[in-house]
Amino acid sequence: MERICFVLQVKPERLEEYRERHKSVWPEMQEALSRTGWRNYSLFLREDGMLVGYLETDDFAEARRRMSLEPVNGVWQESMREFFVDAAGRPADKQMERLEEVFHLA
Amino acid sequence: MERICFVLQVKPERLEEYRERHKSVWPEMQEALSRTGWRNYSLFLREDGMLVGYLETDDFAEARRRMSLEPVNGVWQESMREFFVDAAGRPADKQMERLEEVFHLA
Repeated sequence: MERICFVLQVKPERLEEYRERHKSVWPEMQEALSRTGWRNYSLFLREDGMLVGYLETDDFAEARRRMSLEPVNGVWQESMREFFVDAAGRPADKQMERLEEVFHLA
Repeated sequence: MERICFVLQVKPERLEEYRERHKSVWPEMQEALSRTGWRNYSLFLREDGMLVGYLETDDFAEARRRMSLEPVNGVWQESMREFFVDAAGRPADKQMERLEEVFHLA
């Protein structure tokens, strides 16, 4: 099992709307995440817009690949693209910056 | 149960040593964390020294309070203080910046 942590940057002026959207993530999106192996998945937001994701999965590369093939993911990512800071204009699922796990205590 | 995410800043020039120290966290420190309610606790490091902590606990305020009373914690925090960037010179356990959970999928 892999524990994954990634970082993204939300536009500071869009934080309130970002929060609101995540109170009611589409059921189809949640089902797709579960089906493709994303478990115990949380998003945490800092006041300056830094977004931290944490999840557990058997194989993150495979979970990302499978999720990228879910039609609902394309629609969701496109609807959220404008919330993220990225010079290249990529949707969030293409710009996740993964951090290295240096300690774990069960 | 609370899911906690916090951020700290490690001095970029000390990352390698920080990694090494966390490959062999003292058993007494690990036992104290478990005893005071820190579960599924991971630390993730970004190349610029940003450190993200994730853990699960019943009551984070209480888990922090109880951990702060463990003698081994004082010794550990003092031994690690020099690794962290903090204008006020606080040990890491006194400067954890907690982030807001905005989404969770079991």
